[in-house]
Amino acid sequence: MNLESYIRSTPDFPKPGIIFRDFTPMLANGPAFQEMIDRLKARHQDTPIDVVVGIEARGFILAAALAYALGAGTVLVRKEGKLPHATHRQEYLLEYGSNVLEIQQDAFQDGQRILIIDDVLATGGTVAATVEIIRAHFDVEIREIDFLMELDDLKGREKLADLPVHSVLHY
Amino acid sequence: MNLESYIRSTPDFPKPGIIFRDFTPMLANGPAFQEMIDRLKARHQDTPIDVVVGIEARGFILAAALAYALGAGTVLVRKEGKLPHATHRQEYLLEYGSNVLEIQQDAFQDGQRILIIDDVLATGGTVAATVEIIRAHFDVEIREIDFLMELDDLKGREKLADLPVHSVLHY
Repeated sequence: MNLESYIRSTPDFPKPGIIFRDFTPMLANGPAFQEMIDRLKARHQDTPIDVVVGIEARGFILAAALAYALGAGTVLVRKEGKLPHATHRQEYLLEYGSNVLEIQQDAFQDGQRILIIDDVLATGGTVAATVEIIRAHFDVEIREIDFLMELDDLKGREKLADLPVHSVLHY
Repeated sequence: MNLESYIRSTPDFPKPGIIFRDFTPMLANGPAFQEMIDRLKARHQDTPIDVVVGIEARGFILAAALAYALGAGTVLVRKEGKLPHATHRQEYLLEYGSNVLEIQQDAFQDGQRILIIDDVLATGGTVAATVEIIRAHFDVEIREIDFLMELDDLKGREKLADLPVHSVLHY
């Protein structure tokens, strides 16, 4: 199956000059959605994964389906103020301004083997902050960081240099 | 498995006086997450479902995993400004003020059989607005609306009176 054909490129979203790679046509199509998740599942079938971490909000979709496919749990990394219970917070810089991520303080058990997943690897700021908050507070093993799509020119991968990174599609 | 034991009640979140039913412990636990999705899957195994609709953001988690389990696609109902491409919008009233939901104009094909899912049925305003926006713009069959948890005292079910509603857990 040609998964690329289910990605729609939408110019000037969310801002002028940005070409947004929209994976909603792939989500809406049952066989394409299965194929996307099964390709990711195949990478991890022989290495046990305890938890798939999803980054708000599109990452939740991939993390939940992949966690179910692998028999794993899923943990949410969210924007500020969205998670109940005690959280850790991590501020990170954007091109203009900054953002805050949060994760629950009891998100993981020591020694768990985890995957982090998001829909797009662009400049890598959000996922690098996710790695930072996890490493600062938890004793877990990050086995890989997966993306559906990677925007190669933006070199986000360089921010994750010491970790295995895999993207299903490249632009 | 006693799924209730994986729901954590957090008082005064997101506002004072609210007891938030937090399903993150269930998500984080692989076997509990599987059990939750498998219970929902079992309801729909004999009736074909084309698309599972998830309501932002916690609904995405349930919708994506259930869609994968059923071999269906998933469609996102999001807050204003989050969806690329042409959208329909639906304003709805909250206790104080109002909110806007959006769905992509090409979200469905005519005749599709769909499920709508969210984590909690409380007063039902968001899910009733989701039904309204879908019925106003699409020729699809809403087979059921599923929730992980229902807060019975709030009678949200009454806003969905003409549709089958199922909740896994009741409070």
